[in-house]
Amino acid sequence: MIEKILPISGESLPMSPRLQIMEGSPPENSVPCQWKLEGVTSHERYTSRQEKDQLAAIQPPLGRPEATCAALIPIRKNAQWWTMTQDERQAIFTTQSKHTSIGLKYLPAVARRLYHCRDLAEPQPFDFLTWFEFAPSERDSFDRLLSELRSRPEWSFVERETDIRLVRSSA
Amino acid sequence: MIEKILPISGESLPMSPRLQIMEGSPPENSVPCQWKLEGVTSHERYTSRQEKDQLAAIQPPLGRPEATCAALIPIRKNAQWWTMTQDERQAIFTTQSKHTSIGLKYLPAVARRLYHCRDLAEPQPFDFLTWFEFAPSERDSFDRLLSELRSRPEWSFVERETDIRLVRSSA
Repeated sequence: MIEKILPISGESLPMSPRLQIMEGSPPENSVPCQWKLEGVTSHERYTSRQEKDQLAAIQPPLGRPEATCAALIPIRKNAQWWTMTQDERQAIFTTQSKHTSIGLKYLPAVARRLYHCRDLAEPQPFDFLTWFEFAPSERDSFDRLLSELRSRPEWSFVERETDIRLVRSSA
Repeated sequence: MIEKILPISGESLPMSPRLQIMEGSPPENSVPCQWKLEGVTSHERYTSRQEKDQLAAIQPPLGRPEATCAALIPIRKNAQWWTMTQDERQAIFTTQSKHTSIGLKYLPAVARRLYHCRDLAEPQPFDFLTWFEFAPSERDSFDRLLSELRSRPEWSFVERETDIRLVRSSA
């Protein structure tokens, strides 16, 4: 159940009562909906082996019974970000913005899965969709995680961001 | 016009007389064909700023009148490659295999465009499609470029590769 949709930057998405999550290839017939976002899981783009091992040791799985709150945060980065080379993007992501180290501080409370949508055959409105799950008691902590990330240099390249908050329906 | 299809590793593709290149979103109606490969251009994954500037200074455009020979080389890397982290893949690509420096030696004779197909919504048979254009006098030099790349550690992660050679039809 969608609780609220917070416009963070750029055009937001219209409110909708529910979010349906579908896995696999896109359905042949179009499902009636207010909006539809597609993404694929992929390999790591900036995480180092050391960070990946640290993450693997403490990151929780999706679907924990107590994690009844979720957030879906679609993001698009600007053209300047994408014309930078790997070393330039890596320096901003890691050295200047400490993206992964900030994320690590909020584990194991927050479960996370990243979907990529920049390189799909059909152009998409966002570059990434990140899905987060956490317990209601961790809401404030999750908000602090987002504030920390958004205060860093990496976020000056984010030109569109919407923050969709959800709670698991008991049905 | 397709001259020949060389099986390099893994399953090859059946011979076909011609290759049709289509830009934009995939067509709604399926075009009758022996095989179809899809990919998208994207940002650099390993190139550094210094290398990108070197490349930009000498790389030729596609479509030069004298470059009547072409090669389309679809490649798939194995699971071990994709479970490595960025720093591990970068070390193999750059430090151990000198992928970009090898490529630079063959410029400006060879024009090149890379398409990514690993992260499309519909699973694809290859991870990358690389398109090359060169003059008939550069055939041997192009073959040397491929031999050099294939002899490096990066290529031990290539599990499927097909080498499609084409000449521009005068029609």
